[in-house]
Amino acid sequence: MNTEELRQLGEEKITSEDIFDGEVLHVKKDIVRLPNGNSAGRELIRHIGAVCVVPVTEDGCVIMERQFRYPINMVITEIPAGKLDSSDEDRLEAIKRELREETGYEAQDWVDMGLYYPAPAYSDEKITMYLARKLTKGSRSLDEDEFLNIVKIPIKDLVDDIMSGVITDGKTQVAILKAAKLIEYGV
Amino acid sequence: MNTEELRQLGEEKITSEDIFDGEVLHVKKDIVRLPNGNSAGRELIRHIGAVCVVPVTEDGCVIMERQFRYPINMVITEIPAGKLDSSDEDRLEAIKRELREETGYEAQDWVDMGLYYPAPAYSDEKITMYLARKLTKGSRSLDEDEFLNIVKIPIKDLVDDIMSGVITDGKTQVAILKAAKLIEYGV
Repeated sequence: MNTEELRQLGEEKITSEDIFDGEVLHVKKDIVRLPNGNSAGRELIRHIGAVCVVPVTEDGCVIMERQFRYPINMVITEIPAGKLDSSDEDRLEAIKRELREETGYEAQDWVDMGLYYPAPAYSDEKITMYLARKLTKGSRSLDEDEFLNIVKIPIKDLVDDIMSGVITDGKTQVAILKAAKLIEYGV
Repeated sequence: MNTEELRQLGEEKITSEDIFDGEVLHVKKDIVRLPNGNSAGRELIRHIGAVCVVPVTEDGCVIMERQFRYPINMVITEIPAGKLDSSDEDRLEAIKRELREETGYEAQDWVDMGLYYPAPAYSDEKITMYLARKLTKGSRSLDEDEFLNIVKIPIKDLVDDIMSGVITDGKTQVAILKAAKLIEYGV
């Protein structure tokens, strides 16, 4: 991002109003100065951040989750993921914890697959994606009020399910397609 | 989603509270009944829905946008996209309008690439992704307060930028990886 581009496109905060300070969502309504000098409203969410992982077994299967997502009223197939406990939590430690708690698996080999901004138009949520291999299975430790089923699916089938539109979760689509490509590249 | 799975994982609404009714974001706080009979809070966003497109030229370039995203305070590279005007607007008509307004391009050949849920844990936003080809260029018609630059980038370079983590926008990552694969498949 260069200075000229920022002058053409950048927006500057004039005021910021706290709308809702929830457990997960922190909603704000800001007024910004546009590049042409006009002002405009911006509704946005501050989110603590999250991590997700594609855990791949020796035989090319991915440890996946079936989970009910209340906003869309469906059980969907997703990769393991979770929110950070604090905004400065180490992201690799966070995903190791989530993977262990939700699936029971630990992994010896971790690859950082980069960032995923789910909805940068109105949310600052940043999800770091990982590929994990050399898995060993222990026992999972879900919270009393956490419900999810574990399924093992060949990564080839998941790629097909993403291409055909059966898998609709955003982070799962990106992370599986990236992981399959990295494995194809021999990473 | 079968009945047994829904019994194991499903959540049912008990109460729903309107927190914020904005122009883009509609925030609710619901109380739900969990599968074990306990209740829990769910903070969520209702969003009207959106559409996005990978417009590919004859010579394998994608018409991309550089746009400032206030929540993350950055100019990022994205595919053309936009919100629906109404919840029952035809999605193909909506993306044709957005592409024309934002870039000036029209396309003769459209492929539906399926759905993308950016954040189903807390938002019902549903984005339909399209691949568009056989482009013709007209002139764009941005709103007075809309600012974005157009750049033409080879799809091969975009795939590399997604793999290396340079492109971080979720819908752009998914849609470009899907489009590149479809083109590779000869669609």
